[in-house]
Amino acid sequence: MSPVLAVEAQLETLRQRVDLALDAALPAESAWPQTIHRAVRYSLFAGGKRVRPMLVLAAGEAAGGAEAELMPLACAVEMIHTYSLVHDDLPAMDDDDLRRGKPTSHKVFGEAIAILAGDALLTRAFHLMAEAPDDCSGDRLRRRLEATAILGQAAGTSGLIGGQVMDLESEGQDISAESLECLHRAKTGALLAACVRGGAILGGAPLPERDLLDRYARAIGLAFQIVDDVLDATEGAEQLGKTAGKDAAQKKATYVRIHGLERARGMAEALLREALAALQPFGERAALLARLARLIVERHA
Amino acid sequence: MSPVLAVEAQLETLRQRVDLALDAALPAESAWPQTIHRAVRYSLFAGGKRVRPMLVLAAGEAAGGAEAELMPLACAVEMIHTYSLVHDDLPAMDDDDLRRGKPTSHKVFGEAIAILAGDALLTRAFHLMAEAPDDCSGDRLRRRLEATAILGQAAGTSGLIGGQVMDLESEGQDISAESLECLHRAKTGALLAACVRGGAILGGAPLPERDLLDRYARAIGLAFQIVDDVLDATEGAEQLGKTAGKDAAQKKATYVRIHGLERARGMAEALLREALAALQPFGERAALLARLARLIVERHA
Repeated sequence: MSPVLAVEAQLETLRQRVDLALDAALPAESAWPQTIHRAVRYSLFAGGKRVRPMLVLAAGEAAGGAEAELMPLACAVEMIHTYSLVHDDLPAMDDDDLRRGKPTSHKVFGEAIAILAGDALLTRAFHLMAEAPDDCSGDRLRRRLEATAILGQAAGTSGLIGGQVMDLESEGQDISAESLECLHRAKTGALLAACVRGGAILGGAPLPERDLLDRYARAIGLAFQIVDDVLDATEGAEQLGKTAGKDAAQKKATYVRIHGLERARGMAEALLREALAALQPFGERAALLARLARLIVERHA
Repeated sequence: MSPVLAVEAQLETLRQRVDLALDAALPAESAWPQTIHRAVRYSLFAGGKRVRPMLVLAAGEAAGGAEAELMPLACAVEMIHTYSLVHDDLPAMDDDDLRRGKPTSHKVFGEAIAILAGDALLTRAFHLMAEAPDDCSGDRLRRRLEATAILGQAAGTSGLIGGQVMDLESEGQDISAESLECLHRAKTGALLAACVRGGAILGGAPLPERDLLDRYARAIGLAFQIVDDVLDATEGAEQLGKTAGKDAAQKKATYVRIHGLERARGMAEALLREALAALQPFGERAALLARLARLIVERHA
């Protein structure tokens, strides 16, 4: 098998293990009260690519950590990502009918259950981080808390939530390139960076390695959002699985709107090179992280 | 000073310390993005009586714990309680315009910000639990995680969120006395019980004491909801600070509707006696917990 194919196979295996772990971390659909568990599973298993959990696992592996110590955070970040999508799609927010090619949660279950399903995913994410095995050493408990604090910071008002507030407030406004970058570092970059940093901490990475992985994480975080904007401007609803051209219709600030299509593409590629450069000292240990960076920048949906 | 007055003074001091700790745990109103921090503080400092934080501190004190170890949980439970009120009040849920005598969050800040303010409070609650001091021993870290897991369970789909789902689904329906108790054990009782149990764990209570405190917590949890129903049926909007008689208007299942006013009052008093009986073996150490139980059952708003 070629090295690229071997990495692909490894990613596919990881994706399946993440799905199994997510399934095990949630009550069954038949558990009381059924509606909420159906809604939670509907959004969590709607075909997400599991980029964030794989970043956790790949960063943890680069640092030499064991999968069992990384998986709670891998599941937690995907739950938090999914909750943010469910709430962002609500009529009071971005009012989206489609997500990953399927009707959004509030379209299927109604607004009240969609709000509560988001709340449930957010709650379960942190609950999962707190469920440590009895035989955990003090060091492992400390790492667990440290990774949870990083996750809390990234999901809070200086991260995910702050970015969504700024996004709502910038609709229909002209915003500067600097403000746009600030918005996306909060809305998309913070959680992606927390995946990498949290994985590195759980994996026991020493400080110099953490710094390199932070550089990698900042670069791919921004690249991720730029590619999102490019795709919204260039792809149809069928490829995206969500309403296309919506950013332009809502006069949202995007990289394409501010910098133009070609310059935005160039920025994404420069950030990819920066991310890969940060991984150099890790050699083969960072093969998964390198592949994930390429997948993020070269994706088509 | 009489013993009762001394306990009152102690409760008032604790209440003030909780408010200071809550203030310190949140970004300033001027922090970016300001809207969300204004909304978070608007609801968190809207005149809540801080029953839940005081249960944490009182249970922890009964177990012999230090306040510094208990305060993060005390703040976290109040944040989670407040988030649940903000989301429950939303138009898609109970659609309430008034809370504690003031316009609800979505009336002041709009629905989008109210949803995000709830999300921010929930996120910050768990974030706070993960911020352990560097010099924490392994034992203390383990207790911290255990208390966080109990909080996660209580706030999740088998607790707070599950209770709200059941509440929404039972509107306009006839439900049995058993279902009503199940609903309230989830919606109100679980978080109150988590305050007591979490405080006991952080305070280092041995298992037999934990069991007694659990008995206390179950009794006051149910009593709390029964008193709520009695007040909704008997007090005006001015006393309650929220729309009165709403349960009856919405044909909500309540203890008063199922059991009648007098029997509901009798049930609350029997539960108070049960709670106080569970505290007997603690003697003076449980003076605060005893006073809180009385305050819960004898309150007028």
